[in-house]
Amino acid sequence: MFLHLRFQPDLVVSSADKSRDIFKHHDLAFSGWPALYPFGQIPAFQDGDLNLFESRAITRYIAHSYAGKGIPLVSSAVEDVWAEVEAQRYEPPAAKLTWELGIKPMLGMATDDDVVKAQEAELAKVLDVYEARLAHSKYLGGEAFSLADLHHLPTLKYLMASPVKAVFDARPHVAAWVADIMARPSWQKVLAEY
Amino acid sequence: MFLHLRFQPDLVVSSADKSRDIFKHHDLAFSGWPALYPFGQIPAFQDGDLNLFESRAITRYIAHSYAGKGIPLVSSAVEDVWAEVEAQRYEPPAAKLTWELGIKPMLGMATDDDVVKAQEAELAKVLDVYEARLAHSKYLGGEAFSLADLHHLPTLKYLMASPVKAVFDARPHVAAWVADIMARPSWQKVLAEY
Repeated sequence: MFLHLRFQPDLVVSSADKSRDIFKHHDLAFSGWPALYPFGQIPAFQDGDLNLFESRAITRYIAHSYAGKGIPLVSSAVEDVWAEVEAQRYEPPAAKLTWELGIKPMLGMATDDDVVKAQEAELAKVLDVYEARLAHSKYLGGEAFSLADLHHLPTLKYLMASPVKAVFDARPHVAAWVADIMARPSWQKVLAEY
Repeated sequence: MFLHLRFQPDLVVSSADKSRDIFKHHDLAFSGWPALYPFGQIPAFQDGDLNLFESRAITRYIAHSYAGKGIPLVSSAVEDVWAEVEAQRYEPPAAKLTWELGIKPMLGMATDDDVVKAQEAELAKVLDVYEARLAHSKYLGGEAFSLADLHHLPTLKYLMASPVKAVFDARPHVAAWVADIMARPSWQKVLAEY
C-alpha cells in the first residue's frame, strides 16, 4: 500500500500526517470521497482529469505514462507474471504479517501470535519459490528491477524490522534481493519523506 | 482460473480431460513441471520460447501480443483499475464460493454453509460497488468490454448456476452486465469446448 509518494502527479493522499491519521483509523472507514475511493480504502490518485484507485493499477499507469522519466519499470510479460505473483501469493501473508507486526503495535493493539505463526508459514512457502527464481535471475522479472520488485517495498519496510526478517534471511538469494531493492536511492527517498 | 482455452498460442494445459483430471486432484498438487508451474498450480502458458504462469498475466500478454485479432481488450488505465478490483476484491469471495458451490459438489465433497454465508456477504459488498459503477458505464472499465470484465467469466459460470445467482440478480445493472458478458460469442465458444 502506497500511502505517501510526493512527486508529480500528485496522490490524493499526499501528506505523511494525513496517512498516519488514516492509519490510526485503520483505513477501513476512509469513505469521504466515494467516487474516488469506491471501496473506502486508500490510495486514490489523480492525474489531470483521470481518477484511479487500486495501488497496482496506479503504479502501472505511472510506469507507462512517465516511461521517459527514470528507468523502465514495465517491459516484459515475465515481469508481469511476477507482479501477479506479488499480488496473488506474496501479498496475502505479507499484508497480514505487516498488520500484526508493523501496524498493530503502532496503534497499541495486541499482536495475534497464532496469525503470525500461520502467515509466516505461508510466506515461507512463497519465499522458497522466490529463492529458486532469484538463484537464476537478479530480479523477479529478470535482470532489471521492475514493478514486480517495487511492489514488495511497502511490506518489506515493516517485515524487515520484525522477527519475520529471519524468514527472508534464511534464503540467501532472497536476502540479497531484499537488501538490493531496499537500498535503491528512490526507495530511500520515499522513506526519508514518510 | 482458465483451465481450457483451445486456440493459438497453446496452453500447456489444453485438454478438457486433463483439466477435469486436475480438478479431481484439487489442482494443488500439480507440480510435475516446477519450472513451468512454480506454485504447483495451473494454468501455465507457452508461446514459442516464452513460458508464463498466473492467469491474469497470461491474459494481459495475449491481449497485448495479439491485439490485432479480435477486439482490443486492454486500452486504458481505468480498465486496469477494474481488472485490479476483480483480482483483489471480487476474486477472493467468488473463488471461495465457486469452490464450495461449484467444485466441491462435482467432487462429491460437502459444502460448508458457514463459508458460503460469510463469502456471500463479502461478495454482496463488492457487487454494491459494481452496481454503482455499472449504472454509469456499460462495462467495468468503460463503454467497451475489456479484460476487467472477461476475468469474471470463469467464476460466473459456476456462481450463476448456484443459489448465489440471487446476489447478482438483486442488482439490476450487475444482472444486465452478467447477462451481456456471458452471452458473448467468444465465451459461448469456450463453454462449448469445455
